[in-house]
Amino acid sequence: MIYLDNASTTKTSSEVNQIIANALENDYFNPSALHTQGFSVGQKIKKARNSILNDIKAAGYSLIFTGSATEANNMALAQSSRGKILVGAGEHPSVREKAKEMTQNGREVEFLPLNNQGEVDLAEFKRKMTADVTFVSVQMVSNETGAINNIKEICKIAKSVNPKTIVHSDMVQALGKIPVNLKDLNIDMVSLSAHKISGPKGIGALVFKQSLHPKPIIFGGGQENGLRSGTENVPQILAFKEAVSNAVAMQKEAYQNALNARNYLIEGFKQNNLEFTIHGNGSPFVLSLSFAGLRGETLMHALEQDEILISTGSACSSKKIGNVTLEAMGCTKDDVLGNVRISFGQEKFDDQSLNTVINAITKRVCELKK
Amino acid sequence: MIYLDNASTTKTSSEVNQIIANALENDYFNPSALHTQGFSVGQKIKKARNSILNDIKAAGYSLIFTGSATEANNMALAQSSRGKILVGAGEHPSVREKAKEMTQNGREVEFLPLNNQGEVDLAEFKRKMTADVTFVSVQMVSNETGAINNIKEICKIAKSVNPKTIVHSDMVQALGKIPVNLKDLNIDMVSLSAHKISGPKGIGALVFKQSLHPKPIIFGGGQENGLRSGTENVPQILAFKEAVSNAVAMQKEAYQNALNARNYLIEGFKQNNLEFTIHGNGSPFVLSLSFAGLRGETLMHALEQDEILISTGSACSSKKIGNVTLEAMGCTKDDVLGNVRISFGQEKFDDQSLNTVINAITKRVCELKK
Repeated sequence: MIYLDNASTTKTSSEVNQIIANALENDYFNPSALHTQGFSVGQKIKKARNSILNDIKAAGYSLIFTGSATEANNMALAQSSRGKILVGAGEHPSVREKAKEMTQNGREVEFLPLNNQGEVDLAEFKRKMTADVTFVSVQMVSNETGAINNIKEICKIAKSVNPKTIVHSDMVQALGKIPVNLKDLNIDMVSLSAHKISGPKGIGALVFKQSLHPKPIIFGGGQENGLRSGTENVPQILAFKEAVSNAVAMQKEAYQNALNARNYLIEGFKQNNLEFTIHGNGSPFVLSLSFAGLRGETLMHALEQDEILISTGSACSSKKIGNVTLEAMGCTKDDVLGNVRISFGQEKFDDQSLNTVINAITKRVCELKK
Repeated sequence: MIYLDNASTTKTSSEVNQIIANALENDYFNPSALHTQGFSVGQKIKKARNSILNDIKAAGYSLIFTGSATEANNMALAQSSRGKILVGAGEHPSVREKAKEMTQNGREVEFLPLNNQGEVDLAEFKRKMTADVTFVSVQMVSNETGAINNIKEICKIAKSVNPKTIVHSDMVQALGKIPVNLKDLNIDMVSLSAHKISGPKGIGALVFKQSLHPKPIIFGGGQENGLRSGTENVPQILAFKEAVSNAVAMQKEAYQNALNARNYLIEGFKQNNLEFTIHGNGSPFVLSLSFAGLRGETLMHALEQDEILISTGSACSSKKIGNVTLEAMGCTKDDVLGNVRISFGQEKFDDQSLNTVINAITKRVCELKK
């Protein structure tokens, strides 16, 4: 099978599997227990925390582990207790839906329009970034289109208007894909996930400047420095560390591989005279496109018969009709209906596999258009 | 090593480890993805859900998976949007601390006193259970003392006063330890955990009557029927199902083993003329006791040198001074300071291991009292 739905989730690496198996066998003690074995597991968590912070160049930041990036995004937004909130129109549902819930509770939320490349429109952001804005959330890389937002510039603009505005970025699709340097970006809060970079599901993180004092959204035993209660998910945390470490070390190489594969596919589709539109031109790990005159879902299912797995937009939005991000970019209704997403992980594809994909898509598109 | 801290967390069984390894290898697809592989993983989750519901005799109930029992307890309490809340004085911190947070937000919470056996005092409960009470949370088995609450009677009393009162029970220390039959108890909501019954950390569940329509506390992609967003933690969910299935099948046998071991230890301590007080006499899986004239923490650390692992109260309360449960039971200050908790899992201990424990504790207690 050729798996091209890595923006949805990835297969864990054998190193990650080994770490999980080892932790289940040896590090099952409760890190909050006062005995030496508990303490020793606690130290491993501490090391994992520091390793991830180091990998994302986050000196002066703290990190807490959460049950998912969704939880981290929810917790980030929950830090805003007053004033106006600005949220990118193409954010992940865990940001958009949390923002909507806050609206229902009387909070003022404005969505930031996207340009036709899927990026938050900076001119519009400047216009909306008024002194009463206390919280901004913009993803670094779009899960739908791969569009890359200029987070450094967004932080700069926000801080120039209101230095106390908290800027948060969902970096789930950026980590291990493009360079991530928190200190350089001067970002306040960042959400991360393990399962998009060959790590396990069920573990994410919220990273924040040490000068901030976030409040928890889950209360209890006081784990994670009182900020996220619940027995620490030791195997998943140790595996997360491994996944980040490997993804960051391989980032440049993986980027080049994804870029080559992306370009190769696009070139192949062109040579086969397929009519298509590409949405966004940012991270090469995501290729969002629509073939003229056919439904994305039909193409996706047809390709399953060729053992090629792609998706129609993000899994987290799969149950909804339409595509919020593409609509915000001003795509036509046909483009939205026809959208498919091909997304690469850390593995390198040889020309033969890519040719298989090109040929299968060409065949299926021609058949379905008849 | 003799591990006697199973109320804190357990080692996963080899069956559970195998299921996790297998799911990481084969079921990594995103269950929310629209392709057949995603759907197929989604079906496995559905089966796991039904299997757990079946194991706890919960016809007419729904189950959603959460990142922990702590999250499930938090979500349960979040269902109460008005009126008075009653919470057992010896509840797990994830109930107590969430209740306290709600108090800070203007909600009225009353704590239910415990009798000297560590159970919620039913006479006091009857007195406090007035028509304005909309939510009651009482654990089935205490994580500190093993005290068993009469949940059926608590439900009956609550419903007789206000049929709309939601009764919730944290059944983390009951599942697989004593019979659990939701239908018979007529309980509204129940929290469960995997890692106390040889399942993995990072997965819990909230179970509720289908007539209830709980609201989420984490928003996003709409997984778990819109009630708990975040990519489903497939390996952990499948492993949870296995752990419940096995724990429920073995429940009677494990109970008898724990009872035998508990009685054997108590008898041994008596024969060796140790002075001690037992706190609570409910679930045999937890033996909470204080040896006269010495600190629990000192004894716990001394026993580590004999490769015997016990705890001083629960891990989730380990960082706090004192012991809320024992204090609520009216224990003396000396008993609280001297408290240790010996907790059994599903494994059977032979007399030789138990003698090792008796001898080591006797030796250490005598040494430390000098």
